Amino acid sequence: MKKIVTIGGGTGSYTLLSGLKNYAVDITAVVSMADNGGSTGRLRDELGVLPPGDVRQCLVALSDSSEQLRELMNYRFDNGDVKGHNFGNLLLSALEKIGGDFTSGLKEAAKILNIKGKVLPVSEEKMNLAIKLRNGKILVGERYLDDNVEVRTVGIDKVFLKPKVLANSQVLEAIRRADIIVLGPGDYYGSIIPNLLVGNISNAICQSKATVIYNCNLTNKKGQTDGFDVDKYAQGINEYLGAQRIDFVLCSAGKPSRAAVERYEKKEGKNSIVEFKRDSFPDRPYKVVMANVLGAMKVKVDKNDAISEGRSFIRHSSKRLAKAVILLSEMDEYKKVIKEII
Amino acid sequence: MKKIVTIGGGTGSYTLLSGLKNYAVDITAVVSMADNGGSTGRLRDELGVLPPGDVRQCLVALSDSSEQLRELMNYRFDNGDVKGHNFGNLLLSALEKIGGDFTSGLKEAAKILNIKGKVLPVSEEKMNLAIKLRNGKILVGERYLDDNVEVRTVGIDKVFLKPKVLANSQVLEAIRRADIIVLGPGDYYGSIIPNLLVGNISNAICQSKATVIYNCNLTNKKGQTDGFDVDKYAQGINEYLGAQRIDFVLCSAGKPSRAAVERYEKKEGKNSIVEFKRDSFPDRPYKVVMANVLGAMKVKVDKNDAISEGRSFIRHSSKRLAKAVILLSEMDEYKKVIKEII
Repeated sequence: MKKIVTIGGGTGSYTLLSGLKNYAVDITAVVSMADNGGSTGRLRDELGVLPPGDVRQCLVALSDSSEQLRELMNYRFDNGDVKGHNFGNLLLSALEKIGGDFTSGLKEAAKILNIKGKVLPVSEEKMNLAIKLRNGKILVGERYLDDNVEVRTVGIDKVFLKPKVLANSQVLEAIRRADIIVLGPGDYYGSIIPNLLVGNISNAICQSKATVIYNCNLTNKKGQTDGFDVDKYAQGINEYLGAQRIDFVLCSAGKPSRAAVERYEKKEGKNSIVEFKRDSFPDRPYKVVMANVLGAMKVKVDKNDAISEGRSFIRHSSKRLAKAVILLSEMDEYKKVIKEII
Repeated sequence: MKKIVTIGGGTGSYTLLSGLKNYAVDITAVVSMADNGGSTGRLRDELGVLPPGDVRQCLVALSDSSEQLRELMNYRFDNGDVKGHNFGNLLLSALEKIGGDFTSGLKEAAKILNIKGKVLPVSEEKMNLAIKLRNGKILVGERYLDDNVEVRTVGIDKVFLKPKVLANSQVLEAIRRADIIVLGPGDYYGSIIPNLLVGNISNAICQSKATVIYNCNLTNKKGQTDGFDVDKYAQGINEYLGAQRIDFVLCSAGKPSRAAVERYEKKEGKNSIVEFKRDSFPDRPYKVVMANVLGAMKVKVDKNDAISEGRSFIRHSSKRLAKAVILLSEMDEYKKVIKEII
């Protein structure tokens, strides 16, 4: 059975893993621990637990339990002291408290949810994402990536961890043994890069024999990735990795609807859809794969989740994305669905 | 398989059900919905859900799942917005919100916890316990039973529901079909009587062909049941039932330790241990059964649960209590363990 390690966090990982779990592959989902916004941030600050939100999404994606149990995990309270808290986050926090550490709690949650594969925090330490703006100012906390005026107007120069944290040894081991490593989909600064900043994660990826696939972002974020095209993303990630390690960049062959594009441009500015400029880069160190990976546009907005309103409506299709990843891992078969490799 | 209906709530039901579930009997646990204190009260007030606390305890008692899952259900958060909330209460509240009503949520929880038997709220409406003091004043809310100065000094005349609520039809059906109905153990005014005040529950008990067993309280509460003896409890319950319906009153043949008694007397006053006065009542309409039902004295106090500190340390043994109940239901066998019937 092929060993796939996915690296990310948030909705992107949810989408990918929901699709991947239907294949006979050995999945390890590696999740960033930098989130400090919303329900997750409150639990992290007040209970002193590791941030549960991203892990929860991966657990639900890989869960083989009933639809009701999955719905429960994502349920948000809408009144009282617990308003805005996500039930699954409370579950993970309680299990961490009972088990004594995040990893024990996670194991118990995985059992309750009957998950396929493994979910691992990239680090067992709390991560603080430091955001260096173009004017030199430094903001500490991943929550500043959510619609912060300063970030949106000044723009990000780079991000780093403050302080540095050690990698989870189980993650390093999984990367070492992986046949395929999948980066993203996920927010560039919010979900992908934080993982690459931890201990020697980047080093382990560079040294592994795995095929490295990067699921390229579909849309840009104002102040974060303004006007990025496919190559800018891929090269940015290679830079954080410290080597030109990406083998395939998986992009959308289809275009989102005009209405969706307009909505994005209204919020994130011109060029908010990631484009592939075929001729702009003569000697790419990776192959760009154009495939049918775009999903339906309609996403349920959770009225109790302040963040969800701003979340992307141009999304990957879980099924198509997983299929493309699986086919890339089975090179002889992929020609049936992959439209073009550049 | 014998059909047993237990009626109560709180720790007493937990104790009884934990023992009963090890026998091949068909259990329906009927639970009062009058609680409005602690975590339960906050959820009831702020989320508008039915009070989950007593139901949770019964679910955990009947659960066949792992020790960890049971521990999780009883876990109380000790920091932040969620401080004092019990995880299992949050689970039941979330499931009620998702399912649209308490009964649907309860069904789902029963599935998750893999419970043996059934747990049913005595009413699907919110219950408000009105407490009429001896000076005529009326306090509305079961929470006043927890160490309220006025209740403790003035004393309770009687309790009633305000407004009246309808009985859960499933409960009436279970009572009708029952072979054995077990009242308590549980707080007299807090757990037992509120059930008997709902719709035509008392009527249904009186009309049923079941053997009715009352697990007599072991200790008295200041302002509530000062100086009650076994017969005072049993007759009080018969009065709320509206007929002399109790068949057996199950009492402790053993005596609690001197140290335990002293602790109770310090808090609840003289005569805080329920006594049986053999000759005080010439013509009892029930049989008093003296049996080995006393448990170990040591009870873990939950430091995050303001109520648990005041909870009884003179307790029934789960195993012994269940065994006595089962043996009473199998009359030809009971002589092996039942010491005396008066």
